[in-house]
Amino acid sequence: MEFTVRQIAALINGKVQGNDALPINQLAKIEEGQPGSISFLSNLKYEPFLYTTQASAVIVDGSFEPKKPVAATLIFVENSYSAFTRLLEEYHRQMSFARVGVEQPSYLADNSTVGEQVYRGAFSYIGRNCRIGNNVKIYPHVFIGDNVQIGDNTILHPGVRVLENCVVGSHCTLHPNAVIGSDGFGFAPQPDGTYKTIPQLGNVILEDHVSVGANTTIDCATMGSTIIRRGAKLDNLIQIGHNVEIGANTVIAAQTGISGSTKIGANCTIGGQAGIGGHISIADHTRIGAQSGVGKSIKEPGQAINGTPSQDLKESLKSQVLIRQLPQLEKRISALEKKGIGDQ
Amino acid sequence: MEFTVRQIAALINGKVQGNDALPINQLAKIEEGQPGSISFLSNLKYEPFLYTTQASAVIVDGSFEPKKPVAATLIFVENSYSAFTRLLEEYHRQMSFARVGVEQPSYLADNSTVGEQVYRGAFSYIGRNCRIGNNVKIYPHVFIGDNVQIGDNTILHPGVRVLENCVVGSHCTLHPNAVIGSDGFGFAPQPDGTYKTIPQLGNVILEDHVSVGANTTIDCATMGSTIIRRGAKLDNLIQIGHNVEIGANTVIAAQTGISGSTKIGANCTIGGQAGIGGHISIADHTRIGAQSGVGKSIKEPGQAINGTPSQDLKESLKSQVLIRQLPQLEKRISALEKKGIGDQ
Amino acid sequence: MEFTVRQIAALINGKVQGNDALPINQLAKIEEGQPGSISFLSNLKYEPFLYTTQASAVIVDGSFEPKKPVAATLIFVENSYSAFTRLLEEYHRQMSFARVGVEQPSYLADNSTVGEQVYRGAFSYIGRNCRIGNNVKIYPHVFIGDNVQIGDNTILHPGVRVLENCVVGSHCTLHPNAVIGSDGFGFAPQPDGTYKTIPQLGNVILEDHVSVGANTTIDCATMGSTIIRRGAKLDNLIQIGHNVEIGANTVIAAQTGISGSTKIGANCTIGGQAGIGGHISIADHTRIGAQSGVGKSIKEPGQAINGTPSQDLKESLKSQVLIRQLPQLEKRISALEKKGIGDQ
Repeated sequence: MEFTVRQIAALINGKVQGNDALPINQLAKIEEGQPGSISFLSNLKYEPFLYTTQASAVIVDGSFEPKKPVAATLIFVENSYSAFTRLLEEYHRQMSFARVGVEQPSYLADNSTVGEQVYRGAFSYIGRNCRIGNNVKIYPHVFIGDNVQIGDNTILHPGVRVLENCVVGSHCTLHPNAVIGSDGFGFAPQPDGTYKTIPQLGNVILEDHVSVGANTTIDCATMGSTIIRRGAKLDNLIQIGHNVEIGANTVIAAQTGISGSTKIGANCTIGGQAGIGGHISIADHTRIGAQSGVGKSIKEPGQAINGTPSQDLKESLKSQVLIRQLPQLEKRISALEKKGIGDQ
Repeated sequence: MEFTVRQIAALINGKVQGNDALPINQLAKIEEGQPGSISFLSNLKYEPFLYTTQASAVIVDGSFEPKKPVAATLIFVENSYSAFTRLLEEYHRQMSFARVGVEQPSYLADNSTVGEQVYRGAFSYIGRNCRIGNNVKIYPHVFIGDNVQIGDNTILHPGVRVLENCVVGSHCTLHPNAVIGSDGFGFAPQPDGTYKTIPQLGNVILEDHVSVGANTTIDCATMGSTIIRRGAKLDNLIQIGHNVEIGANTVIAAQTGISGSTKIGANCTIGGQAGIGGHISIADHTRIGAQSGVGKSIKEPGQAINGTPSQDLKESLKSQVLIRQLPQLEKRISALEKKGIGDQ
Repeated sequence: MEFTVRQIAALINGKVQGNDALPINQLAKIEEGQPGSISFLSNLKYEPFLYTTQASAVIVDGSFEPKKPVAATLIFVENSYSAFTRLLEEYHRQMSFARVGVEQPSYLADNSTVGEQVYRGAFSYIGRNCRIGNNVKIYPHVFIGDNVQIGDNTILHPGVRVLENCVVGSHCTLHPNAVIGSDGFGFAPQPDGTYKTIPQLGNVILEDHVSVGANTTIDCATMGSTIIRRGAKLDNLIQIGHNVEIGANTVIAAQTGISGSTKIGANCTIGGQAGIGGHISIADHTRIGAQSGVGKSIKEPGQAINGTPSQDLKESLKSQVLIRQLPQLEKRISALEKKGIGDQ
């Protein structure tokens, strides 16, 4: 994708000083700018780079006055940082949704409908009775099982698996090799020590604006639905058990696991590698530290908890300091004991 | 798949009261029943739903007497819960094994033999000299390397990778993106600080009735075999190192890791996110808590252990309570010390 | 692949006693040797197997004198263990790079160049403007996005995803379903509780001789590059956040997670399931224990650390012993307190 400086200035409502016909095809940090790239100067700590950068154009604040000659074309805007962020977003949006059409070979089974402006990459697979919305981007090697629905403007990166009967909302992003709707882990112990598989007949529902990280797995419900609510963001390598519900706008960092039938509230933040036990509920706005182990329900909203087993964050930090001091504590007890003997 | 109430009643040995010609194509909870679905009533807590459910049919105990008129057709059986479970299993079995035939394009290399009633999905790949049993279901995007054997009635879900020389038993289920037979992690340190790769030439053997979760990885042995014994069940995102052996009917929850050359006994249960060190053995019937770290062999069968480093479960729970009380313990020591000073 | 005993003896500079025309097509432990396999005897504990083995040939030390008749052909070398290791490596190298050519269907977009002796498996996908070096092995179901570079002699196992703009060095091995260049986890909180996606426009650079495990995920940088330095070895199911740098020859065991913008030095070893926080640096030659949680920078090189929160390894082991003894410590405090009361 290539723009001129003039087009970019129009997008971010800026005033150009210099050559406005230069072509721009990349965004870069000011210290790494190359011909064809555009950068920005906000923090004046980076001002020296302005006079040496190879970038074709630099976005600066309207109030900024260069102290030396500048080779790059300048674009003056009200707030250079916001303008650059807007540019990033626009660039990313255009890149993400640039692909349209069908690469061959790809597979589309009977009775499935596909919207407008859809991309279907080579080796992508769509099963029977699916409904794929408009502007959906299905990268190579994606698998979509029977009876799946995908909302508008959703991106499925390479190798994503959406199993039968699952529902994916609009504006979702599923990162590579994410698995939506794998069987829940349910086995009934038999008298002879073996296990019988409990059929998992439910599905997974991802509401709108959900993000699912690379290699993350979300199991289908035994019956009913595992639900990820609107705007929730899941990082990579996360495990979501069957019949779990994750609340709206909850953010979960990588490698965390949520056991079956647990309900996480809205607007929670959960650190990496945390483990949440099964059949409990976590109140809205709870913050859970990385590597925590949570075995009991959190009923009061807005708490910060940490540790294994988890406790109030402040208490947990005190305990953690004292764990490190355990050898000294033990010496203090020994000293008291010896003194005690001396006393007798 | 569609049945009549009459057909279902015959399968579960029930007596019909009402219209036995109704079509059934779904199983549902009684409170969520829709026309075309069948449900059950076992726990009488749910009895009020019986009089309002939209389900076409409901399975009830033979001794049950409705207190109000019921719109749904009733099927009376000895034990409604068992009958419904049997129905679930039959439905699941029929759904799982419904697919037969070959979707194109798919890849089948020379000298490989494929049994009867096999499904080979589009974009599935079978290497050379493989033997694929009867009724095996190979979903799209599955990779099967050279010299692999797959037993009868085994299901390989989308994106499963079975690398060369591996052996998969009968009645196994491999969930999406599971990796069987990736290289073990073996590197020999060199005097200059670099590492030389130690060739991993062995394979993985999954015995019969093994289940492997989504995105789980099982490394091949350096020489010989990594072995998962009959009936073992592995959840999602588990790591099994090279030359490990997992005993029969052992169940491992998600995100647990087993380091190389460790031997886990039969009928063990291991919680999620646990870590088991390398070159140790764990006795039969051991129960290991979630997030535990086990560094030493467990020799006596039937123990419950927990924590990092792991210890007897009861002791571990006591220690965990006291970890939370460490700030108070420290204050009690301080108080004793002050009193001691006062004594002098 | 098949060799004669004579050819193998020539490769490892050995002297044959017995039939040097026997065909060899496998390497095996001496106790598991079958006709057609070659084994070795180094540790004399295994000598009894020499007289019973079915292997066609056995490599022995030059000084070794059999005490009984041996059916197998013997190859005498200076050091039987080293000779066998060399054979293993040669065998592995030949197996790994044996495949050449293109299986169909596979996908190669415009403007991409592919070197000599390359293997492109069925259902592999190469995007636009890619440069693929010589002797690269691209297994089935591999996805390579636009503008990707892959150096010579690199192997991409089935299901590997290398996303757009990433750079992979020479002599790298990417194991099945590894994801290189997925979006970093960046979301800006909005006043209404929702999150806005922060575009991730950078890439991942893997230098030469890097190994990436099965189902491991390495996120691209927000801007600039996530970098894995020369010779680093990453095990399975590892998470590497955006803008991370992993130093040369650093080895990381399975299921460890490194949060965003953290810099790990060279020649470090990190145990399994460890978690390293974001925006910190770890000095060269640091050893970090399994399941550790590291939240602060390690500035002095060569330290061994352990635990959560991590501390010096020796102190950590002392603390861990005392955690187990907490119930006894508490009793000792109680005893002192009671005595104190008696004193008064």
